[in-house]
Amino acid sequence: MPKPPLPSGLDAFLRRPNPSVIGSLQEDGAPHTAATWYLWQDGSVEVNMAASRKRLSHLRNDPRVSLTVTDAEDWYRHVTLRGRVVSLADDTDLQGIDRLSRHYTSAPYSRRDEPRVQAVIEIDWWHAWVHGRPWPSGG
Amino acid sequence: MPKPPLPSGLDAFLRRPNPSVIGSLQEDGAPHTAATWYLWQDGSVEVNMAASRKRLSHLRNDPRVSLTVTDAEDWYRHVTLRGRVVSLADDTDLQGIDRLSRHYTSAPYSRRDEPRVQAVIEIDWWHAWVHGRPWPSGG
Repeated sequence: MPKPPLPSGLDAFLRRPNPSVIGSLQEDGAPHTAATWYLWQDGSVEVNMAASRKRLSHLRNDPRVSLTVTDAEDWYRHVTLRGRVVSLADDTDLQGIDRLSRHYTSAPYSRRDEPRVQAVIEIDWWHAWVHGRPWPSGG
Repeated sequence: MPKPPLPSGLDAFLRRPNPSVIGSLQEDGAPHTAATWYLWQDGSVEVNMAASRKRLSHLRNDPRVSLTVTDAEDWYRHVTLRGRVVSLADDTDLQGIDRLSRHYTSAPYSRRDEPRVQAVIEIDWWHAWVHGRPWPSGG
């Protein structure tokens, strides 16, 4: 079970605006998945959600998450990161979602009227695959 | 919380060989996510995994899963399906994985020496988004 830090090739991959899906836990313990923007910040991950989003109460209830990041050009290349939400902070000035939005769309976030929350995830474990083989091979 | 059956547009989308990520539960209840092939079969979902795969014991331990399916051309279009594994059967002749492999690659599965298991997932709940809005709109 590889632990951080990640090899530099994966680090470079995770810095790109890739598609990702976050897994969290519902109140009843069932798994919950949703497509999400993420930002890789020197070994931790930031995500952002509307304050009204169900996922927020899930994360307050149980901070454990798993994120699978895929290559937009070749989804057979993917990295899974598992960890815990270590911070949930009101994104009062929308700086958090703007950072994510600029990363993915090169523009600030369009909806300005909705309260949002920024979460920081600390990574405990990672695994990467490329076409069914560990990635990087032998690394 | 929309329940099946799905609108025909989503049904047609799910029949395509889309990227997907499955969320399941580790033995300790933590969320686990992994990229996977899936096959949409008239309202239920088939997935397949090597018999050695950790995910198999997760599913035996707790059958609840969540699958987020994204459009390979536009990952802002995605469907999440939540449900339970209702069947786990040895894929003795590799018919299951071959069906998936043909769907995604137009060829039978290349590795023939590894025992595999086919899982059938019954869907209890679905939700679909396109560019941050419910999909289909008003549907």
